[in-house]
Amino acid sequence: MTHLRLSWANTLRPALGATGIDPVELGGDLLERARQARRKVAESAGPGVPGFRDLPGDRAALAAVKEQARLLRPGTRHLVVVGIGGSSLGTEALLSALAPGVLRGSSPPVPDGIRIHVLDNPDPHSARALLDELELEHTVVNVVSKSGGTAETLAGFLVLEEALARALDPEGGTPSRWRDRLLFTTDPEDGLLRRIARRYGVATLPIPPAVGGRFSVLSAVGLFPAAMAGLDPERILSGARQVLEAHDEAGPPASTLALLLHRLHEAPAGQPARPIHVVMPYGDRLRRLALWVQQLWAESLGKRDRVEGKGTGPTPLAAAGAADQHSLLQLFMEGPDDKVVVFVSADDAGPDLVIPSRYPEEEMAAKLAGHGLGELLEVERRATAEALRRAGRPSLHLALEAVDEASVGAFFMLWQLATLHAAAHYGVDPMGQPGVELGKRLTGGLLAGAAGPSPDVLRPEDTGGATWPDP
Amino acid sequence: MTHLRLSWANTLRPALGATGIDPVELGGDLLERARQARRKVAESAGPGVPGFRDLPGDRAALAAVKEQARLLRPGTRHLVVVGIGGSSLGTEALLSALAPGVLRGSSPPVPDGIRIHVLDNPDPHSARALLDELELEHTVVNVVSKSGGTAETLAGFLVLEEALARALDPEGGTPSRWRDRLLFTTDPEDGLLRRIARRYGVATLPIPPAVGGRFSVLSAVGLFPAAMAGLDPERILSGARQVLEAHDEAGPPASTLALLLHRLHEAPAGQPARPIHVVMPYGDRLRRLALWVQQLWAESLGKRDRVEGKGTGPTPLAAAGAADQHSLLQLFMEGPDDKVVVFVSADDAGPDLVIPSRYPEEEMAAKLAGHGLGELLEVERRATAEALRRAGRPSLHLALEAVDEASVGAFFMLWQLATLHAAAHYGVDPMGQPGVELGKRLTGGLLAGAAGPSPDVLRPEDTGGATWPDP
Repeated sequence: MTHLRLSWANTLRPALGATGIDPVELGGDLLERARQARRKVAESAGPGVPGFRDLPGDRAALAAVKEQARLLRPGTRHLVVVGIGGSSLGTEALLSALAPGVLRGSSPPVPDGIRIHVLDNPDPHSARALLDELELEHTVVNVVSKSGGTAETLAGFLVLEEALARALDPEGGTPSRWRDRLLFTTDPEDGLLRRIARRYGVATLPIPPAVGGRFSVLSAVGLFPAAMAGLDPERILSGARQVLEAHDEAGPPASTLALLLHRLHEAPAGQPARPIHVVMPYGDRLRRLALWVQQLWAESLGKRDRVEGKGTGPTPLAAAGAADQHSLLQLFMEGPDDKVVVFVSADDAGPDLVIPSRYPEEEMAAKLAGHGLGELLEVERRATAEALRRAGRPSLHLALEAVDEASVGAFFMLWQLATLHAAAHYGVDPMGQPGVELGKRLTGGLLAGAAGPSPDVLRPEDTGGATWPDP
Repeated sequence: MTHLRLSWANTLRPALGATGIDPVELGGDLLERARQARRKVAESAGPGVPGFRDLPGDRAALAAVKEQARLLRPGTRHLVVVGIGGSSLGTEALLSALAPGVLRGSSPPVPDGIRIHVLDNPDPHSARALLDELELEHTVVNVVSKSGGTAETLAGFLVLEEALARALDPEGGTPSRWRDRLLFTTDPEDGLLRRIARRYGVATLPIPPAVGGRFSVLSAVGLFPAAMAGLDPERILSGARQVLEAHDEAGPPASTLALLLHRLHEAPAGQPARPIHVVMPYGDRLRRLALWVQQLWAESLGKRDRVEGKGTGPTPLAAAGAADQHSLLQLFMEGPDDKVVVFVSADDAGPDLVIPSRYPEEEMAAKLAGHGLGELLEVERRATAEALRRAGRPSLHLALEAVDEASVGAFFMLWQLATLHAAAHYGVDPMGQPGVELGKRLTGGLLAGAAGPSPDVLRPEDTGGATWPDP
């Protein structure tokens, strides 16, 4: 059984014309590049670096997730996941695809079902709206931070914890009443959350040390909320495992995906460079998968080149089909030839809804009648790929077998592996995010500086004259 | 009173360093370019082309919107807006900013308040979830399509209309029972919706012929849902009017915004070109404003150059602060120097929520204690702008006075005017979207071709060998 299918004919010369990739390259230069990348990826997978590849086989982690869900699920009506970036995007993508009625903001609630809320931003209006909605006595708060000290996550946690404490222990004498409703997903040894957990006896799930935040969706980070939503974490892992095994035996499709995207970015002289990688799922449930890819790709590949120190990396753009055919497609068709579109869809998208015949005298209404909405969506995808092809613009197509646990698990693993290959092609370290450290330090400085800006920080207003209206 | 403030010091050499814009240019070459663009914009604003600039002064349109809302609001618990692209993004941005508890997916509902749903995609799962949620006897359906025949919108309308008809007129004898719950916002003369409205007596609101879909948010397209949400459409228009008047007198800030973004894109030789325009609002209510800008900018400027026929136009990227500091910032800081970030925030963002002091022994928790979540958000924005500046990466800052009708109306007008200026700089026609016509024709062909693909359409599968697993 195969949970994913990758098609790339629309990147090749026979389909695309002159600016496509010559198939001869596939057996020559590109094959050699793929081999080199595979060697680098294999080298980076030493026994001391378990990383995300070990997650699908980690039976102990799976058991711990299931056990926590078994303990916390009864009586719980709300799960709040507090996290940002890699601590929230994977969970949102996963739940939005597989349990949209459970994830707030994704679909109307399942009646009497659990509701999962993701607090991913220090926004007072969002936090207050969340507090108004929660029934605190039936709420579990899952704080997710690999490092344990992410400022936005910590701020959200402190606000929620205070609310829990006040609601469940108004007398202030029995902290176990509310501490039992907390779960920290964090590094097994280090960090603020780990210290608090040890000191005050808060339950925890580990993120293995070698698994970076954006590679963590197949750890407890994504699996615990999935289990709370009633999904089967084991099937998510089995889909991921299948892609991993196929990769370790033969390379494709992860290595092919990375190779083609890189080749289209860094094309030979005289050919267009396509540094913008559009990920465009068709279907509302799949929309947030593109946001997860966006982070993974941007944060892993947007780096200084190891050799020359120059900034490198493609720009991932999350789009949504068919809606963005009415938003971005004009640019993709007629704007600069600097983009590759990766279409994402599901072969079996589930039950369709038939468009009724209502105005047979109107040509377009007559044309739609009897077709399904989902059929229309798929037709739009194929028509868009074909229109791009005729304009000489490349695209790939990644098809999930179905919108189910195994296919979504496979999707996550595919892109994580592809990221390692892409990093090898670009000559960057896919781990770490050194570029965001300065912002964090400045944030700390500004907070410490009370009301005003730290003198170290230049405000636009200070430079004079570059403001409208004139200050 | 001023509803917007634009700051651009962080694009200039004194703040940014060598790759910034020399302030001398601002009084020389750039001033001349701005003058030329202003002439072109003025020429395109002849009396025969009312366009979006006439919307803020259109008293008759405002009266019609208010009258329809007065008629339809009583007893209505759900308003469904069926539209896509320019027919939905502005409404979503507007409601998400000003009435988040009313817009589904944006915030938890206001108890006993009206709920506004936007159906923007032909997705059977979304449509079915919507039908499950609606109380059809208390539902109004607002179908929005300038041309009247957009396939996705029409499909959604047909499905909803059938559901309304079955629920409100099960005997099939009194169509006024459900036709009275319909409102078409469309061209005053042309198109399928207009014909159906005439023939069957459906209520309508007009989109003036010279107003393209993506420039229509200040017409009945955005104002009717706003009025139904209890917002004051007059104040939205007054904010827009203020920016329009400032523009027609002096040019800035719309012309400055467009000029600087273009100058940073098409920099002099030896300087980095920055074709990626990131719009990054801080605050969840403002997030969708970036998606509205994305469409406006992409579809207006992503065109073939009038003179050389080459593809041109920047790529707008919608980001969300502070969340995307943990997603995209690494790429913005260390990746290629090909981006300009436009920060968006509100000077008065409303009531804050204080972070409690809970773990004083932990440094980061102690640092946060006593500060507001909103304060943290603003500090993150300033720290990010400063980090980018130190990395030599340009940014602008667009500050709304408050998250209120006037400021949001001003925001819409600012970007619409800036789009005209940008189009003049790029040498393209900002109206029309010729690049998406082929896709529409192919969609029609595929639908007509029943189950299989039209023989005219090449499937990736047909080219052989470029698929994994092998077919």
